[in-house]
Amino acid sequence: MTEIIRPTLVIDKGICLHNIERMAQKAKDFQLRFRPHFKTHQSAEIGDWFRIYGVEAITVSSVQMAEYFARYGWNDITIAFPLNVLEIINVNRLADNIKLNVLIENREAASALAIKTTHKIGVYIKIDTGSNRTGIEPSKISLINSILEILAENKKITFKGFLTHAGHTYSARSTNEIFSRHFDSLLKLRTLKQRYLSYYHNIEISIGDTPSCSICTNFSGVDEIRPGNFIFYDLMQQNLGVCSFEDIAVRMVCPVVAKHASRNEIVIYGGAIHHSQDSLLNIDGKQSYGRIVINKNNEKKLLSPRNYVARLSQEHGILKVSQKNFPLFQVGDLVEIIPIHSCLTANLARKYLTTEGEEIEMINTRG
Amino acid sequence: MTEIIRPTLVIDKGICLHNIERMAQKAKDFQLRFRPHFKTHQSAEIGDWFRIYGVEAITVSSVQMAEYFARYGWNDITIAFPLNVLEIINVNRLADNIKLNVLIENREAASALAIKTTHKIGVYIKIDTGSNRTGIEPSKISLINSILEILAENKKITFKGFLTHAGHTYSARSTNEIFSRHFDSLLKLRTLKQRYLSYYHNIEISIGDTPSCSICTNFSGVDEIRPGNFIFYDLMQQNLGVCSFEDIAVRMVCPVVAKHASRNEIVIYGGAIHHSQDSLLNIDGKQSYGRIVINKNNEKKLLSPRNYVARLSQEHGILKVSQKNFPLFQVGDLVEIIPIHSCLTANLARKYLTTEGEEIEMINTRG
Repeated sequence: MTEIIRPTLVIDKGICLHNIERMAQKAKDFQLRFRPHFKTHQSAEIGDWFRIYGVEAITVSSVQMAEYFARYGWNDITIAFPLNVLEIINVNRLADNIKLNVLIENREAASALAIKTTHKIGVYIKIDTGSNRTGIEPSKISLINSILEILAENKKITFKGFLTHAGHTYSARSTNEIFSRHFDSLLKLRTLKQRYLSYYHNIEISIGDTPSCSICTNFSGVDEIRPGNFIFYDLMQQNLGVCSFEDIAVRMVCPVVAKHASRNEIVIYGGAIHHSQDSLLNIDGKQSYGRIVINKNNEKKLLSPRNYVARLSQEHGILKVSQKNFPLFQVGDLVEIIPIHSCLTANLARKYLTTEGEEIEMINTRG
Repeated sequence: MTEIIRPTLVIDKGICLHNIERMAQKAKDFQLRFRPHFKTHQSAEIGDWFRIYGVEAITVSSVQMAEYFARYGWNDITIAFPLNVLEIINVNRLADNIKLNVLIENREAASALAIKTTHKIGVYIKIDTGSNRTGIEPSKISLINSILEILAENKKITFKGFLTHAGHTYSARSTNEIFSRHFDSLLKLRTLKQRYLSYYHNIEISIGDTPSCSICTNFSGVDEIRPGNFIFYDLMQQNLGVCSFEDIAVRMVCPVVAKHASRNEIVIYGGAIHHSQDSLLNIDGKQSYGRIVINKNNEKKLLSPRNYVARLSQEHGILKVSQKNFPLFQVGDLVEIIPIHSCLTANLARKYLTTEGEEIEMINTRG
């Protein structure tokens, strides 16, 4: 910690390994393929930590990310994003080298793939089980049929099954609501799988969200889970009741640069280019961009929610703190901010520093 | 445009040059030093465009940014961020090579600077004229005096004057309110300058925000302006009445990957890792993360505010569009998103593509 002089994303490898091990064990217990989503960390080195627990197949959210991890020896990758037809040349090149799966949810992309696919490729049909972001509503059987007909025109394409991301678990107001949305999602996928199983004998169900994968215990009919965020977790997951503070593996460490006693505010070097702009409703009814951990007398202390990141501009973060805690902050101190959304925070940081002082690289998409 | 296959920040160099020229001319007309803020573009190549209009001094928001631009020949730089005492070694190294100014707003940082400064350095005292982010309230004369006393202990330090960023112009509800906040800010700074002018004969007033610098015409007593955003502008500025759509120089070009007729939504490849998460209140009472320009029959068309970026997740952007416009979008199309906040969008993009097809690099902070 003493060498940090500017905003730095510090990662606790021990917590990460524990989080990976727990999810890998859960997948094993429920006989599920564990295909973790690597969009959260975007790092080849962190990717290697998953190999310790037997992970061989991964999920990514872009063709670029698939290309990056393929270079680091991952040869079974699902790109969990609606196929971008403008990247089909890149997709073909990848499919020539690794086992690649893509997502289809409309006839247009299915046609482009059927016409242009030159190498063996797997296709999941993306189903919208209620998150209303992407995917086909499970009742739209004629659309699914017509997509399957189009895909069947190219023998290099294998229909792998139905995939969903039940992202509406993130807006659940209780863990019970996570359970019920997960179960509803499962029922929809199982019904679909049943309908098509006699024609396609090896089709699978793949589900993805970290809340369900973390706390649910009914995976009947599921073949694969693709959680990503769980390696780091964050305040959003903690707030959902999905993890504890002790499970959160990343913190943005920031220097204190100014104090304003008249409004109990601390200015840190660490703004919207360091922290995600995602927020949570704080107990005072304001938006919080992170919780604060301070280091006093070599002891770390998580401050109560009355102390939080209240505003972000490009490089500035403004902490609202209680009058009692205000004197604990000194110009030149380092404070630790627990992120609201670790995936986006990591994407901004572009690299990590482990608690042991080792630098870890991420994908470079500048090239 | 036809070569773009994934989210790409496209920049119109002609508009940028026009925006720079207009601001440079305004500074000349009002006899102000023009010290543009380079945190908006963070690019050495774009920085060179300012030299055409005689710019020799610049503003940055971090020590790293100062180091980057110093490497590209900029030798008069103000770091417009409260001095981070943890970076004083880097600050000294910079001050050895260029004319460097830093900002002080408390005794702690003043002491650290007075003790550790080894090379000539300029100091502005940061004044809070109402934005309540950083800076000293102008009434706190005893604090200002004590800081000046501390700084006077080191003869290498020159007190340069008072600097503010009237960031509260961004929350103005009318251009009149921008005028009045700017004028109030000026009065406060002029009063301070008057008070100290007999002791410090060369002190200056430096102001910074793009709204005031763009539309105000009273700069009496001001010595320097430091706007940054004006080179690109964005929807936030357009919404404030500070620029027109034609002045906005950057657009995030994104592929269409899916359509959902049941809710008039278009899914684009382009999410929170591409667009800033800053938003504006749309006419339908929802948050908008950007306006949409489409290209039909080789003609560009800005769609009405009933068509906008409604949601962002990591890689996905969801466009809400009118029923009438829904058929205009096809899977595989490219759409142009006008950013809400161009500084943060550029920071996420990490590079630019000009409308002439030239790639432009930005600072690399991964190292």
